Amino acid sequence: MIRPITFLSDYGYADEFAGVCRAVIAEIAPEARVIDITHGVPRHAVRQGAVLLAHALPFAAPGVHLAIVDPGVGTERRPVALRVCDEDRLLVGPDNGVLALAARRFGGAAEAVDLSDSRHRLEPVAFTFHGRDLFAPVAAQLARGAALAEAGESVDPSTLTQVELPEPRIYPDRVVAHVLYVDGFGNVALNLDHDQLASTFLKLGEKMAVDAGGSKITVPVGRAFGDVGPGQGILYEDSSRNLALAVNQESAAELLGLSPDDEVMLSPAQ
Amino acid sequence: MIRPITFLSDYGYADEFAGVCRAVIAEIAPEARVIDITHGVPRHAVRQGAVLLAHALPFAAPGVHLAIVDPGVGTERRPVALRVCDEDRLLVGPDNGVLALAARRFGGAAEAVDLSDSRHRLEPVAFTFHGRDLFAPVAAQLARGAALAEAGESVDPSTLTQVELPEPRIYPDRVVAHVLYVDGFGNVALNLDHDQLASTFLKLGEKMAVDAGGSKITVPVGRAFGDVGPGQGILYEDSSRNLALAVNQESAAELLGLSPDDEVMLSPAQ
Amino acid sequence: MIRPITFLSDYGYADEFAGVCRAVIAEIAPEARVIDITHGVPRHAVRQGAVLLAHALPFAAPGVHLAIVDPGVGTERRPVALRVCDEDRLLVGPDNGVLALAARRFGGAAEAVDLSDSRHRLEPVAFTFHGRDLFAPVAAQLARGAALAEAGESVDPSTLTQVELPEPRIYPDRVVAHVLYVDGFGNVALNLDHDQLASTFLKLGEKMAVDAGGSKITVPVGRAFGDVGPGQGILYEDSSRNLALAVNQESAAELLGLSPDDEVMLSPAQ
Repeated sequence: MIRPITFLSDYGYADEFAGVCRAVIAEIAPEARVIDITHGVPRHAVRQGAVLLAHALPFAAPGVHLAIVDPGVGTERRPVALRVCDEDRLLVGPDNGVLALAARRFGGAAEAVDLSDSRHRLEPVAFTFHGRDLFAPVAAQLARGAALAEAGESVDPSTLTQVELPEPRIYPDRVVAHVLYVDGFGNVALNLDHDQLASTFLKLGEKMAVDAGGSKITVPVGRAFGDVGPGQGILYEDSSRNLALAVNQESAAELLGLSPDDEVMLSPAQ
Repeated sequence: MIRPITFLSDYGYADEFAGVCRAVIAEIAPEARVIDITHGVPRHAVRQGAVLLAHALPFAAPGVHLAIVDPGVGTERRPVALRVCDEDRLLVGPDNGVLALAARRFGGAAEAVDLSDSRHRLEPVAFTFHGRDLFAPVAAQLARGAALAEAGESVDPSTLTQVELPEPRIYPDRVVAHVLYVDGFGNVALNLDHDQLASTFLKLGEKMAVDAGGSKITVPVGRAFGDVGPGQGILYEDSSRNLALAVNQESAAELLGLSPDDEVMLSPAQ
Repeated sequence: MIRPITFLSDYGYADEFAGVCRAVIAEIAPEARVIDITHGVPRHAVRQGAVLLAHALPFAAPGVHLAIVDPGVGTERRPVALRVCDEDRLLVGPDNGVLALAARRFGGAAEAVDLSDSRHRLEPVAFTFHGRDLFAPVAAQLARGAALAEAGESVDPSTLTQVELPEPRIYPDRVVAHVLYVDGFGNVALNLDHDQLASTFLKLGEKMAVDAGGSKITVPVGRAFGDVGPGQGILYEDSSRNLALAVNQESAAELLGLSPDDEVMLSPAQ
């Protein structure tokens, strides 16, 4: 039985990179379904790729999950494949953190291999295109049922690169959160999830003072962009169940000058 | 028998939104073919999405046609699925007009359901991502053969939101048309179709005065961009059989400052 | 047996053009796998499309290879399909050079047909959208096993449009190469391939003086971007085995103002 392959990268759409990887997969595993998650991760944004992958995979059937955001391609960083503890999912990509949050979401890595000399590689392996020569062929072989242990040299899962995210600080009268990521519409996701949110003063319908990027604005806690007029700000629980800040029909990130890890302080409006 | 699914949206390519919808569809209906029409509809441009969908569907096999341009997601607007009178096509998306022109093209809606509490929805339904939690799972179930009537609450098709387009005015010595849409190359489609065009003085090879966006230019009626030199304007019947205005290898919309609904006056050149 | 179809174009992602071609293919050949190579070739950049296609196809299974970069659509240029000498691959697209380098890569065209009046065309054929009305339906029929000779009027393969590329000049103390293409990251591929490279003084670890676009810089010969720090230049053999010039995490093409065919002079650094 052939497993589906999801594919996320920062290859963009101008070049043939993602397409060539799809071609390699189709040649090795013509029956495997390939689901493009996105190839629009900002270039070299390993952390953003990690967050998107972790958000997307719970909505994808268990299979082989290829993720390539790889500024260090051709250098010391290891190319890896790993099996997570839950749902028998296989993750394939560089060991630079891009797989880390998705792995954590599914119980952590149970087994991992270094693909540097994988028997599945296409030779000569280009130093600058492991997607084509290492990751895509390995993903395709795994989708066809090849054993993970045979795909490379065994690696201790505890040595895999992790991603450290800042922690929000929750006080009775204020919350100091951080920008987790910015989507393509400029909506700003914060590192405050559904459960953390429930323990705060941030209740539907209340007005909040937002202190971020040197600006102070007052916005309501709502449910969707359309709850406020065009150009108006809103705090809401986004589709990944994180608190998020948006400006209806505009870019909150641009208006407030916010980037990942920036602090956002929230308190009840006076 | 599994039906194909076409998918059009304004989700763009930077984010994982379209990809997550594809993943949801692939999990529910692994055998269904998904054909991406485009995810590059300008953000929130309901009308442009409606025009593109109506132009694309006659070239797609009858199936399930998913279209998401949804500025009001999470507010009052209804999520719907409908069956058109001709060819047994099923349309799925927000009831804000994005489905209206395609429905009209195929004889109008014969049956419609409100998907708000659809049995096929993924819970919890995010207020800001009905694509993932409502539209994609419903489309996938319909592709697998689920009955439309079981997908939601029955809705009177006459209550579905329509799109009103301006009408061109045709006189013996001039035509006042309007911009229907602008494509990604800046070519400007006008609301004058093949049959209307035939009744005018706009004949192949003739020169026309074009009065638009405050500019007056003279251009020939030709058949393809290559009929004029680079930087030269041309009127031609586009691939949707509408009259269109282009500037070879440049953007007519940008050069003339044209947007949807703007008036364009055409008359024989002196 | 159904053959896979690869698809490359300059249709971009904003419009429905590539999607409508996919829909046409899916209607005619529902079982055919379609592999999008890219639709992000710069608009009307026939030569760039030709280079990308020739680089991508060796990594795709033999099948039907659709390539549409077609500034002259609707004019004199012929729409064609051809069989190459090696591997029984079929190429479909305009006869303007976009197929030429891929054909050459696989031994040249052995058989070709003019598709202008193809029995497989969709009528009426739009003058501006041969992708939808000629190329996609022909590609789909060929994928289903239709005979090439029946797809159009026989054409002498020696009359097919070729692409002429400049030749590098290799001296003992310097190399004058040319920009072959620029990728979406701004990395600059030069017309010096693996074998030519081996005959020069450009050895791993050496420092080179690069004289290009009016600037002179000194960069090492390395293996991957990560071999130098951010903002630092590097010469390396790219994934197509051409010599390339990059600036780590920036655009070499932009920094040096380089476009296809521009000269780049390389010599050992003093």
